[in-house]
Amino acid sequence: MNILMNIRLKKYLACACAVIAISASGAKSQHPCLLFNTEELSEMKAGMKEAPLFDKSISKIIESAENALTSEISVPVPCDGGGGPVHEQHKANYYELMNQGVAYRFTDDKRYAERAARMFEEYAKLYPTLGYHQLGLSPVPGRLFWQTLNESVWLVHASVAYDCIRDYLSASRRANIEKNLLFPMAEFIMTGTDDNRANLKTFNKMHNHGTWATAAVGMAGMATDRKDLVDKALYGTDLSGKNGGFLQQMDWLFSPDGYFTEGAYYQRYALWPFVIFAQCINHTRPELKVFERRDHILSKAFDALFQLSYEGEFMHINDAMEKGLCAQEIVYAANILYGVEPDNTTLPYIARLYHDDCIPCAGGYRLARAIAEKPAESTPFRSTLLRDGRDGKDGGFGIIRDTAAGRNTALTMKATSHGLSHGHYDKLTMALYDNGKEIFLDYGASRFINLEAKNSGHYTKENDTFCKQSIAHNTLVADGTSHFGGIYKVSSKHHSDFTDFKSDPSGKFQAMTAEEKNAYADKGIAMERTLMHASLPGMSYPVILDLMRVKATGEHQYDMPFWYRGHMVSTNTRQTRSLTEMRPLGDSHGYQHIWVDADCQPEDGTSMQFTFFNGNRMYSVTSNATAPMTGKLMHLGANDPNFNLREEKGWLVRVPKAADCTIASLIEPHGEYDVIRETASGTKSSVSDVRIVSDTPDHTAVKIEYGPKKQAAILFVARDSDPDKSHTVAIDGKTHTWTGHYHITANN
Amino acid sequence: MNILMNIRLKKYLACACAVIAISASGAKSQHPCLLFNTEELSEMKAGMKEAPLFDKSISKIIESAENALTSEISVPVPCDGGGGPVHEQHKANYYELMNQGVAYRFTDDKRYAERAARMFEEYAKLYPTLGYHQLGLSPVPGRLFWQTLNESVWLVHASVAYDCIRDYLSASRRANIEKNLLFPMAEFIMTGTDDNRANLKTFNKMHNHGTWATAAVGMAGMATDRKDLVDKALYGTDLSGKNGGFLQQMDWLFSPDGYFTEGAYYQRYALWPFVIFAQCINHTRPELKVFERRDHILSKAFDALFQLSYEGEFMHINDAMEKGLCAQEIVYAANILYGVEPDNTTLPYIARLYHDDCIPCAGGYRLARAIAEKPAESTPFRSTLLRDGRDGKDGGFGIIRDTAAGRNTALTMKATSHGLSHGHYDKLTMALYDNGKEIFLDYGASRFINLEAKNSGHYTKENDTFCKQSIAHNTLVADGTSHFGGIYKVSSKHHSDFTDFKSDPSGKFQAMTAEEKNAYADKGIAMERTLMHASLPGMSYPVILDLMRVKATGEHQYDMPFWYRGHMVSTNTRQTRSLTEMRPLGDSHGYQHIWVDADCQPEDGTSMQFTFFNGNRMYSVTSNATAPMTGKLMHLGANDPNFNLREEKGWLVRVPKAADCTIASLIEPHGEYDVIRETASGTKSSVSDVRIVSDTPDHTAVKIEYGPKKQAAILFVARDSDPDKSHTVAIDGKTHTWTGHYHITANN
Repeated sequence: MNILMNIRLKKYLACACAVIAISASGAKSQHPCLLFNTEELSEMKAGMKEAPLFDKSISKIIESAENALTSEISVPVPCDGGGGPVHEQHKANYYELMNQGVAYRFTDDKRYAERAARMFEEYAKLYPTLGYHQLGLSPVPGRLFWQTLNESVWLVHASVAYDCIRDYLSASRRANIEKNLLFPMAEFIMTGTDDNRANLKTFNKMHNHGTWATAAVGMAGMATDRKDLVDKALYGTDLSGKNGGFLQQMDWLFSPDGYFTEGAYYQRYALWPFVIFAQCINHTRPELKVFERRDHILSKAFDALFQLSYEGEFMHINDAMEKGLCAQEIVYAANILYGVEPDNTTLPYIARLYHDDCIPCAGGYRLARAIAEKPAESTPFRSTLLRDGRDGKDGGFGIIRDTAAGRNTALTMKATSHGLSHGHYDKLTMALYDNGKEIFLDYGASRFINLEAKNSGHYTKENDTFCKQSIAHNTLVADGTSHFGGIYKVSSKHHSDFTDFKSDPSGKFQAMTAEEKNAYADKGIAMERTLMHASLPGMSYPVILDLMRVKATGEHQYDMPFWYRGHMVSTNTRQTRSLTEMRPLGDSHGYQHIWVDADCQPEDGTSMQFTFFNGNRMYSVTSNATAPMTGKLMHLGANDPNFNLREEKGWLVRVPKAADCTIASLIEPHGEYDVIRETASGTKSSVSDVRIVSDTPDHTAVKIEYGPKKQAAILFVARDSDPDKSHTVAIDGKTHTWTGHYHITANN
Repeated sequence: MNILMNIRLKKYLACACAVIAISASGAKSQHPCLLFNTEELSEMKAGMKEAPLFDKSISKIIESAENALTSEISVPVPCDGGGGPVHEQHKANYYELMNQGVAYRFTDDKRYAERAARMFEEYAKLYPTLGYHQLGLSPVPGRLFWQTLNESVWLVHASVAYDCIRDYLSASRRANIEKNLLFPMAEFIMTGTDDNRANLKTFNKMHNHGTWATAAVGMAGMATDRKDLVDKALYGTDLSGKNGGFLQQMDWLFSPDGYFTEGAYYQRYALWPFVIFAQCINHTRPELKVFERRDHILSKAFDALFQLSYEGEFMHINDAMEKGLCAQEIVYAANILYGVEPDNTTLPYIARLYHDDCIPCAGGYRLARAIAEKPAESTPFRSTLLRDGRDGKDGGFGIIRDTAAGRNTALTMKATSHGLSHGHYDKLTMALYDNGKEIFLDYGASRFINLEAKNSGHYTKENDTFCKQSIAHNTLVADGTSHFGGIYKVSSKHHSDFTDFKSDPSGKFQAMTAEEKNAYADKGIAMERTLMHASLPGMSYPVILDLMRVKATGEHQYDMPFWYRGHMVSTNTRQTRSLTEMRPLGDSHGYQHIWVDADCQPEDGTSMQFTFFNGNRMYSVTSNATAPMTGKLMHLGANDPNFNLREEKGWLVRVPKAADCTIASLIEPHGEYDVIRETASGTKSSVSDVRIVSDTPDHTAVKIEYGPKKQAAILFVARDSDPDKSHTVAIDGKTHTWTGHYHITANN
């Protein structure tokens, strides 16, 4: 950002503000009217004692506001990025502004309002002096922050604060704050500058950064009674409602099932401006019935996000870091949604288990009352297929849950579109959560938010070179290259497809199948994966059949990693262990980051078995294929100069050379290790063999031999998902006939 | 065990039993009289509803007894080791016996007594047919189990059961069970056989296995009114009280502070037979005042064990695995001790936080009542030096605690004797626990209890080749060799010594110093370590000065590892990273198991800094020495063919060549990362330099430069611990004078 441009920016903004100041008339609302209105304020203040969690939260806000009164107001000139002290000060300031505003409304103590007013006035002094942020790191640079995104978040909070204290301010103080701070900031977020229209593009974009922008501008408009700002926030800068704006974002950004294509981590973040702005809209424009829009899409989005959690933590899809149901955004969403859905039982379930806080809004108050007065809810988790894409036609994310009989399992398959810039090359990837733990994991992203020593808190280089690559996921990798060659533009054009997602009515199994035809189009490879979660007689826990069926032209190497958490126990192979020297698995597509711990050679013709334990349970993966296999034990860390990667470990099933190929793996949780009593049972896998006994264009059949008496079960997966189609096959001289996609036969 | 020997064993036992049967007269006690007597039973039954946890536990016992009634009694011929199905069946049986006995006493329902009686009768059939266990793996083999230890545990539980149902049995049934099972088993545990007197040796030994044996025999004696067995259990087989027996074990096995030389993990296990047998003695021989013996040594032992825990987990000293305050042994100990110490506040503190269960005894009942009726206790942790050795003269284990202002820190130094066969070569080793996490750790042991695939559940080879070695610990290693050359017999003859353990009365610091003169006697090396936990003005958390002072003849290489838990952030060195090839650190004394991740070279003359984070807090170690240093980043796993080692990581400060040498490291916890709000602060170390500014025969002075304004603090450690001795030194032209062992000067 050169100096000339900054001078031009200031001139432009001065001019824009003059215009705005004139147009700032319109109907006046009664304030507060954003997070809560005066009726709700009375309700909350009156019933505080019946809602202890709410009471505690408001007390905390007031205490925090009170403590801040004696400190000096600090509004420094912006200079650093995320995690830097000035950046963090401006973040702390927007929290304080909101605390002061809310404290004022809940206590009527003017000291809080005055403090917020003074801070606003400091900002009104600073803001007009600011050009673009000096860091110059973001393609959408802000003025107060290094990127406009943070500026939008600032304005969302500040608008709530301003809404609370507006009535306290004299007309001239209002004019100063609005003219020098709120209007130019809103205008900047909405339009950008003559020299840089990145903000304008973002504001009208169907993207979560756009939602922060529309929420910020819309809420600033509501707080200042600027109808024009609110209209543009709702309907886009051209006011057509067809080229941007919050309502279109509601229509476009979630699938009909509420799935957000970037994955759970970003869905959580994206949801925040949606719910907070929707709350404000519901107060100021109730006729829009915003919470009912698109068949209650915000509720669906929240439910989808909840279903994408395990033990309170969001599943690590795409660029994901540690984040879960205790996140502030979820507190906002659960509280606000409860205000319009008092019969929703998921919201109190979450609040009870994960929230130590409420948002100052009527929903938060009522939710806190509900968890104090009503009995606890049973688990609202269910098996579900969340379709991806605006119209639900871009594949989906399948979750098979098992919460029966005290079990706690979630088995997932990702067969979605790429997921925008945060997507990974991970078609048909599997993850397993069981017994409260992450068993087969998705690495998620390599990023250390706000840690300056780690690439200033941005995504690390290894996020591209490893985390996004196919080998980082529990899916098929052909010839050591990532899906779509790891090329974003190509991957973005395609999506996988679910062909089936079903539960057996008898409760014996649940299964899902998805196919991917484009990831290796250049190699003529199509893949189809079935994950079947089935109860077999005599097994202590349900098992999972993981069936990967590959059609290919020419011969290829196929890798199937199982990235696991736990401690390796044994394999049934001849292991050549890396004892005194360690080498990487390859040199590109993520392979360069993997150290090979051991090469494993199965005995000829037998299935290959790998066992590990995690917590008090053991897991065995027993694999076989229609072509010879080898195995590898591996762990992360090669070619990672700055120690950015975690030390994750994997078991790799490799078919070195095959054209068409089917790989069947049986995942068996087993055993029980009681640490208190030091008792152990079932620590050896009960599976003695897994064999693909039939693999035809009509179906695949996998025979499992298990238990001390070598019981047998055969799991059948037809190619055709037609539930009415019949199939017949003779195995070991016995004829098996079934109807439909999946079938299991097992002797008791 | 050959056949001939087994035949002889049977003959011998048949004969021994005949003799015993005759001598089985003596006074008759009223039963039950072991875990509880009839008065206590009435008290417990009457007040059940006021003690919900107790009520729940008894209900669980009764439910478990009830459920077992319909299953077939299974008393198989012994054949396998720990974790094997037959072994586990006999363990399950002793739990069931006890459950049935207790259920009978709490309900008067004879079905439970009858079930226990029948199981006893099955054992009475099986036991006489048994020779020594066929596995032949233990030097002290059992008959029902592979080692006698498990047989003692069996008999402890079975005695409680028998005590409960004795009155229910007819005289002939009693005679059968006593003659064929209880008497011969007690005799076997006490005396062994003509061919193998290993049991006799163990019974009279000052060792926790001996305590299990005396408890088993004594409790069997009480349950069967065999005064002779009880006497031998109390006073040793020669009845002198000087050559064995439980009372002498009480006098010998703990230090005067209650420290058990093998460490916390085994102290927990050792405590079990002590408390359960003491409870029985208190019922049957109250005149012995067993709980008051040796100034309440059992309470002291329990308190020492509690102080050796952090966040409910026992510190990993010597051969330690995961185990903590929720262990069954601790439930026993806390419950039983509460029966005699109703004013002890540690016991309800533990029960509240860690126990979901009670033992069927009066103490358990009263403890459950207390936690239901009384308010919660504040933390009973304190800084303490636990002396080692029977007379408290064999060094000790120092724990500095900081629980002020919401902090939760434990800093430990181990300067004890070797710790018998479970000891490690870890003189003066340091460990740090902070913020609820293990920060600098002791690996503990490599063992997977009851996991047959991992060396049949025994200690793995790597326990000797790595875990016990000095380099596995956070202490000084000279010339790449372990203390005492890793030779048990030599190490067992020596112990370290604490020279000081103190808290500054102003509350500014706590410090401890210990010395070790024998570990490298062959190299002429003596070492002295001071750990000082100090609050410096302007620092967010107290820091730790780790000062290792080495006196040596000739030059040596000195290694100081910091095995850490967390994610590496940065060093201030030039790092040569192992990118595409990894090699071990050495080839013996544990070094062969360590992969070198990076070689680090500090800039000349500057201190060397390493930063990592764990949870929401950062830690930096800034080191300097009186000779040139280098650094290494390292992780475990080399030369570990069976993947027995965990993937722990370490930072190594190495002085490649020096004679006398002082190494000073400042450990600084810093920063705050709020995962919910994604705010970060203080993520960089505030320490810019650590320098040894004076190092004389009188004292060492370390200057810390820190904070944005380069504040300075100097920490002084005199050689002489005399609190009245004065010291003077001029540093940077300024004279510092102080009196006593430690001193800090810091400008505000």
